[in-house]
Amino acid sequence: MLVSVFRKAHFNAAHRLHNPKLSEEENKKLFGLCNNPSYHGHNYTLEVKVTGEIDPLTGYVIDTKILKDVIQKEIHDRFDHRNLNEDTVEFKELNPTAENIAVVIWDLLRPHIDSKLQLSLRLYETENNFVEFNGK
Amino acid sequence: MLVSVFRKAHFNAAHRLHNPKLSEEENKKLFGLCNNPSYHGHNYTLEVKVTGEIDPLTGYVIDTKILKDVIQKEIHDRFDHRNLNEDTVEFKELNPTAENIAVVIWDLLRPHIDSKLQLSLRLYETENNFVEFNGK
Amino acid sequence: MLVSVFRKAHFNAAHRLHNPKLSEEENKKLFGLCNNPSYHGHNYTLEVKVTGEIDPLTGYVIDTKILKDVIQKEIHDRFDHRNLNEDTVEFKELNPTAENIAVVIWDLLRPHIDSKLQLSLRLYETENNFVEFNGK
Amino acid sequence: MLVSVFRKAHFNAAHRLHNPKLSEEENKKLFGLCNNPSYHGHNYTLEVKVTGEIDPLTGYVIDTKILKDVIQKEIHDRFDHRNLNEDTVEFKELNPTAENIAVVIWDLLRPHIDSKLQLSLRLYETENNFVEFNGK
Amino acid sequence: MLVSVFRKAHFNAAHRLHNPKLSEEENKKLFGLCNNPSYHGHNYTLEVKVTGEIDPLTGYVIDTKILKDVIQKEIHDRFDHRNLNEDTVEFKELNPTAENIAVVIWDLLRPHIDSKLQLSLRLYETENNFVEFNGK
Amino acid sequence: MLVSVFRKAHFNAAHRLHNPKLSEEENKKLFGLCNNPSYHGHNYTLEVKVTGEIDPLTGYVIDTKILKDVIQKEIHDRFDHRNLNEDTVEFKELNPTAENIAVVIWDLLRPHIDSKLQLSLRLYETENNFVEFNGK
Repeated sequence: MLVSVFRKAHFNAAHRLHNPKLSEEENKKLFGLCNNPSYHGHNYTLEVKVTGEIDPLTGYVIDTKILKDVIQKEIHDRFDHRNLNEDTVEFKELNPTAENIAVVIWDLLRPHIDSKLQLSLRLYETENNFVEFNGK
Repeated sequence: MLVSVFRKAHFNAAHRLHNPKLSEEENKKLFGLCNNPSYHGHNYTLEVKVTGEIDPLTGYVIDTKILKDVIQKEIHDRFDHRNLNEDTVEFKELNPTAENIAVVIWDLLRPHIDSKLQLSLRLYETENNFVEFNGK
Repeated sequence: MLVSVFRKAHFNAAHRLHNPKLSEEENKKLFGLCNNPSYHGHNYTLEVKVTGEIDPLTGYVIDTKILKDVIQKEIHDRFDHRNLNEDTVEFKELNPTAENIAVVIWDLLRPHIDSKLQLSLRLYETENNFVEFNGK
Repeated sequence: MLVSVFRKAHFNAAHRLHNPKLSEEENKKLFGLCNNPSYHGHNYTLEVKVTGEIDPLTGYVIDTKILKDVIQKEIHDRFDHRNLNEDTVEFKELNPTAENIAVVIWDLLRPHIDSKLQLSLRLYETENNFVEFNGK
Repeated sequence: MLVSVFRKAHFNAAHRLHNPKLSEEENKKLFGLCNNPSYHGHNYTLEVKVTGEIDPLTGYVIDTKILKDVIQKEIHDRFDHRNLNEDTVEFKELNPTAENIAVVIWDLLRPHIDSKLQLSLRLYETENNFVEFNGK
Repeated sequence: MLVSVFRKAHFNAAHRLHNPKLSEEENKKLFGLCNNPSYHGHNYTLEVKVTGEIDPLTGYVIDTKILKDVIQKEIHDRFDHRNLNEDTVEFKELNPTAENIAVVIWDLLRPHIDSKLQLSLRLYETENNFVEFNGK
């Protein structure tokens, strides 16, 4: 009997869409305004979903206070008020599209969530654009 | 060709997280502020999802007016403006975590939804904490 | 490794629930106020979900600018500020329930999305009533 | 010591922008798509604001249950699932712009709110377009 | 040249509407379900508004980090996960209606905001019911 | 008889809080993470409020299509997908706090709104932090 628990978090970051393996011209053509060399930014909203059995002792699938702390430490403290392209090792070579950020966040969270629990996530770049990744 | 229909509802209730089989000390350690003996409370938002074939006569999977009335009678009238631990039979012995409330609500709704339709639900305890249950 | 990309859009339309194969009386009984012969209306919110592999060149599953343009042309320009029953070929004979509108929109979008990508959608008729269709 | 109390309500209606004193051509030029003769529609959200002193007996400026019932009877039951131009006396001759609807609603509510209380309101036509009227 | 700065915060609490100077019967008649002796609860959202001149050195009217800390210490830590009637000195004798809670919060915040700045606030009890207090 | 018309718009930008007249150390102390030299960013939401009499010909205070176009041209096209500190003349010397951005936007919009209409605005930097400016 599986139940999913969701926890939302937020971080504000600068980025530009840019594939370092392509020329400036190709990047500009592919990414338009999002390729602006001096960056733009977003309020990212992250929605983490953890699925598993309810522990009969606690009535929890996972204690959301623990989940909140993991997200705070692994994601918020790493990316909030940062420039994703400039300030993080994760996006030095990787284009910080919402899709790629979602996969990177999943990889960062996975080791900190009990392996019998499934992990999925949504990342909102704006209210109108968002992505979902259900894991590898 | 399956389509899902969603209907949202709300109820406001008091509760405390407490497992009657554990000592006061263990409860306090597990649930912290949520274990406050004089209770705290939430505006719960319930999102019911019913999945099935479209009836060609009505163009409906389920008439949302009927779904609304079922939720009103079975859930809202039972839990709204109540103390979940004190005023309800469902949580006399069961810890009213979001996970457990979701399963209880599913059990209460299931007999009132046509058995050829699937039933799932989400329960929001706050905007940042919510759970999903897709059924037994 | 599948990632889903979501894009939201809006259109405002008039409609009435009415099955032309039924009598006036049967329609009134089935659909109540929603059968009002002079129509009522909604702000519809459409959430399109496209699922596939991340293209390593762009970091995109699909360029949301392209997705946005497809939705604008195929859905918004067709239905926005229209009377669904009166002004559209799609609902001349088909009852414009949220369920039927969702399937019609899926059929309109499908040919414009690369066939290796999956297509799903949600249609919000109001904040409290919405439907989801994951495709044929 | 003045406190304001707010109550939200919703109604879904069809309308077209049309000034009956102008020609078809002038109407089309002024109102574009909003002038569509077969109508379009909206989910209107109404936010009523009542300002006054707190009654020391109840701790209320106004009992929101009473305010809710007034809005239900005077506004919702009159306009919900209606065509504003066709089905209502208020907009037979008056162009149902958000501005005019707001003033009409204020006039309909004012006699039902105690005269020592101030009355204001907001009317949302969409999430992005709304109006406010603080009274005559 | 006055600018207003807003900061939102949240707290979850139990309460019952009850005027200790009235009989049980009168309380029940006035407050209905909200008078439930075993309490119900809400997710309260607080929106604090501080108005003043922009400091040319910082570009701030008030540093929102400081405002956030004041709200956290004076309001959140006092009321979150509490029973307003049972656990707080403020509502031992005062009926915790949204109106009264708003005035109490204003009184608690006022000494901690520079006297050249104006202070107002909104308190949301639910999405549909909220109050505003612009000060004494 | 005054009515206010509101129109919302969005832009996504990078910025850092930095007063060029202060030392690096003073800036870091005043603005903390917000002073990050490689920038961070936000989804800004702008809410423009225009107040005046209803034009009896149109039923409008202002045509929101015109207001939308003014905001698009004067604000969105100038600031969207830009680095406020690097890419704009407005914030070359001025610290781009929400307060200062709000005043700059008001100055940019004022000449394009009929002088008999009042102009106010809100700028949301995040859902929890926002500012309001009612004009000079």
